[in-house]
Amino acid sequence: MRLRNILWRQLDPEAYGRNGLSPINVVVVWIVVLSSVLAIVETEPTIERLAPQTFMYIEQILAVLFAVEYLIRLWAEGENPRFGGVRGRIRYALTPAAIIDLAAFLPSLIAPGIYSSPMLLRVFRLIRVLRLARLGRFSRAMGHLIEAVTERREELLLSLILGSIILTFSAAAMYLLESENNPEAFGSIPRALWWSVCTLTTVGYGDIYPHSPLGKVFGGLTSIAGIGLIAMPTGILAAAFSDAFQKSRTQRQEFVEQTAYPRAAADAR
Amino acid sequence: MRLRNILWRQLDPEAYGRNGLSPINVVVVWIVVLSSVLAIVETEPTIERLAPQTFMYIEQILAVLFAVEYLIRLWAEGENPRFGGVRGRIRYALTPAAIIDLAAFLPSLIAPGIYSSPMLLRVFRLIRVLRLARLGRFSRAMGHLIEAVTERREELLLSLILGSIILTFSAAAMYLLESENNPEAFGSIPRALWWSVCTLTTVGYGDIYPHSPLGKVFGGLTSIAGIGLIAMPTGILAAAFSDAFQKSRTQRQEFVEQTAYPRAAADAR
Amino acid sequence: MRLRNILWRQLDPEAYGRNGLSPINVVVVWIVVLSSVLAIVETEPTIERLAPQTFMYIEQILAVLFAVEYLIRLWAEGENPRFGGVRGRIRYALTPAAIIDLAAFLPSLIAPGIYSSPMLLRVFRLIRVLRLARLGRFSRAMGHLIEAVTERREELLLSLILGSIILTFSAAAMYLLESENNPEAFGSIPRALWWSVCTLTTVGYGDIYPHSPLGKVFGGLTSIAGIGLIAMPTGILAAAFSDAFQKSRTQRQEFVEQTAYPRAAADAR
Amino acid sequence: MRLRNILWRQLDPEAYGRNGLSPINVVVVWIVVLSSVLAIVETEPTIERLAPQTFMYIEQILAVLFAVEYLIRLWAEGENPRFGGVRGRIRYALTPAAIIDLAAFLPSLIAPGIYSSPMLLRVFRLIRVLRLARLGRFSRAMGHLIEAVTERREELLLSLILGSIILTFSAAAMYLLESENNPEAFGSIPRALWWSVCTLTTVGYGDIYPHSPLGKVFGGLTSIAGIGLIAMPTGILAAAFSDAFQKSRTQRQEFVEQTAYPRAAADAR
Repeated sequence: MRLRNILWRQLDPEAYGRNGLSPINVVVVWIVVLSSVLAIVETEPTIERLAPQTFMYIEQILAVLFAVEYLIRLWAEGENPRFGGVRGRIRYALTPAAIIDLAAFLPSLIAPGIYSSPMLLRVFRLIRVLRLARLGRFSRAMGHLIEAVTERREELLLSLILGSIILTFSAAAMYLLESENNPEAFGSIPRALWWSVCTLTTVGYGDIYPHSPLGKVFGGLTSIAGIGLIAMPTGILAAAFSDAFQKSRTQRQEFVEQTAYPRAAADAR
Repeated sequence: MRLRNILWRQLDPEAYGRNGLSPINVVVVWIVVLSSVLAIVETEPTIERLAPQTFMYIEQILAVLFAVEYLIRLWAEGENPRFGGVRGRIRYALTPAAIIDLAAFLPSLIAPGIYSSPMLLRVFRLIRVLRLARLGRFSRAMGHLIEAVTERREELLLSLILGSIILTFSAAAMYLLESENNPEAFGSIPRALWWSVCTLTTVGYGDIYPHSPLGKVFGGLTSIAGIGLIAMPTGILAAAFSDAFQKSRTQRQEFVEQTAYPRAAADAR
Repeated sequence: MRLRNILWRQLDPEAYGRNGLSPINVVVVWIVVLSSVLAIVETEPTIERLAPQTFMYIEQILAVLFAVEYLIRLWAEGENPRFGGVRGRIRYALTPAAIIDLAAFLPSLIAPGIYSSPMLLRVFRLIRVLRLARLGRFSRAMGHLIEAVTERREELLLSLILGSIILTFSAAAMYLLESENNPEAFGSIPRALWWSVCTLTTVGYGDIYPHSPLGKVFGGLTSIAGIGLIAMPTGILAAAFSDAFQKSRTQRQEFVEQTAYPRAAADAR
Repeated sequence: MRLRNILWRQLDPEAYGRNGLSPINVVVVWIVVLSSVLAIVETEPTIERLAPQTFMYIEQILAVLFAVEYLIRLWAEGENPRFGGVRGRIRYALTPAAIIDLAAFLPSLIAPGIYSSPMLLRVFRLIRVLRLARLGRFSRAMGHLIEAVTERREELLLSLILGSIILTFSAAAMYLLESENNPEAFGSIPRALWWSVCTLTTVGYGDIYPHSPLGKVFGGLTSIAGIGLIAMPTGILAAAFSDAFQKSRTQRQEFVEQTAYPRAAADAR
């Protein structure tokens, strides 16, 4: 089964010996990106109207391609000690990456005639855009970035909770101050929350804002609090990245020192 | 009084031997969160209208629950050496946490009929949302985050003062430039302050903005100053978190070294 | 001249022996702050109309107070070796702090009748708000913050220049793409600059924004570039503060070590 | 050829012996900046109308000046060992800096009569603003800043990719939720992308925003995700600058130590 071994080494990024992606996976990445771009563009009626048939055909071809790729991957993973035999394949098929791969083509293979309701059609289109999630399996560097973030997940979660409490309090206070003059925008705390989130994240659409002088004073204070709210996760992430970079540099330096002066390093032990 | 001791260890987070929260406190946290969500949702007239009676009954039950919890806590704190006896209980009742606990249910127990004026009703509702503040006593990790922030309170306060001065100057300058063309928005410095705060925090609702060319030039400069204003607290917090993380890592490392080489550490002393 | 010496030590923050501000200067700071608040509030016609005479009288009293303070300072600085004699007083009167002190009361002492033109009146009011700048002389801690910032002035200036170039290019490109459809907003590069600055600083008033699809694509790219533009000064300032804090901590530690083990430190030399 | 050597040392920033820019290059920088300001101002019809002839003459003079400068540079580069002879000059003319220099005056020398179409005229004006890019060759300090950024280009690229995926998903989800009620703004994913980019970068023009309650909930979550999206590059850049500053400080310190204790440093080797 030399072919299966070659395919496995080509398709599984972790089985590929060299740095970067194998040629086959580079092609797969490009097809995934282009298929997502197509799925995005297709939703625009003024574009879709130009050649509805063509779009449908391309979509069908892409779905078949992804299905073939899925089956080859399933077969080739037999080389992986973890996924040998029928049982191993089932285990492979249940990994998150394989489920995402399956979800990327299955809805398109099922006759699109059933997407008669516009809501179902939109859900179906959303799924096609989600194909981008397939890229996750190909990126190791993304992993390092995400690792640095997840290492501080506790602090980030806390700043999220703190943010939620500030959000709620500012909405409740604005409801107190403005609901009389501005019942449409601030008539209830859930409505005021829309203003709160727009202000504290400094998005500021400007669809609703306080009108009374007291409301404006409080709105200004909320905007200033928003700066602190943004500064906290930024500060946490900045510290996390700074640590991660320093760690990787120390490791590299230690590696260089041990390689350059192997005897000295051995003596030092 | 074994029951009182068990209750104390369950209810007082600082008396609980293990990490995290005791099972009873986990339940209390969830009830507090849900009761706040309910208090938020209830203010929306379109939802409250669906079942006004039900909302009132749930609220009454929650208030009774919190009252019972308050009394049990008061009783159980007798185990705490600091709060023994009647005098100790009074001292406990005057701690900020206990006052917040009391404020969380007292207004709901008092006949809601007195909240006839819409303003009083809104104040009452705000108090119910503030129940979220009860969560403060349960979070030790939040304490670490807040500690890192408070350690830099001087620098943060200074950047706030600096920000206030920039805010005032930009408002005064805009009043100078735009009050003629745009009296409604920039007719006085307090009015211009609303624009200043929206711009310097980069919220930018867009309800008021300069119209004259000179005003736009100055408005652009203010926006750019706003970046600096945001960068300052962000930088301070980033440095504070970076320090806090490094300190906690150094401590952990020292702990590991002392545990791994206890004799060497002892010799070194 | 014991009185002059006491006054000098009370009035000159650098001659005051202890930490913080002298009691007299605390009072001066409060009067400066309150006088600025008054100057801000007074510009609001709906408030000024309530008691125009009272506002004018308070203002006159404040101006006289500041004038008296100015003269006492001028006299007391004779104790300062740098400012002795008539020549020294003239040198003192020409320091930036003294000029600001003078500008804070002189326009109010000159008969306000000459501020008949509304423009002159607004300039006069602006000057009164600028009294806040007098606070600068009282804050040493502010000095440390500003020092940390000025140490990186080169990098901050460069990021400002880089930002200006990006600003100009994005305005020029938008002028190319949108001036046909949207001549009022994008009919020239200076007009497009107003959009550019609003977008790159993420203020986003929403008074003008691209309408054509191509303009929106480019507008989106500009918004993303804006994140980088904000990130650069924030990163520079974060690094500056981090350095400043670490330096101050190292100094404190060295101080502690030398104080705790004076002999060891002496031996090590 | 002493004149050519002097000119070369004056014109080529890398051949200039001292710090900073040579007097001739300072003049060139100022002319470039002023010519760009002129090119910007000239596009404003209300200004251009005042003296169209004058603007055209100044522009022609500037173009001739830049052409002369270009030819002198070309001649003087003969002193540079890398660009000697005719072949060397051709190699020099193909460097990016020389091409930018050429593009800065060539379109203005070609008879402006051919810019009859308004679109061509705008492209021509854009090119004139791009003269600012000529400044790049004069700034070494800018190089250090850009180096610190490019060293982290992988992480920055990754955060850009991660941002694009979040952008796409939020647009697709909003299309699902709002396209029914709000077909003009959210009728397709490309249209929803305009909202996504405005929200995630916290620009928030406010031309389109969700109207349905579910859309607002999701919009709020997107705004909060936007904070994270901004925090990531900010954190990366902050860490990069922090590293760059520390490195430059360590180098300076090592330099000082080696200069102060040259023997000790030599012994240590």
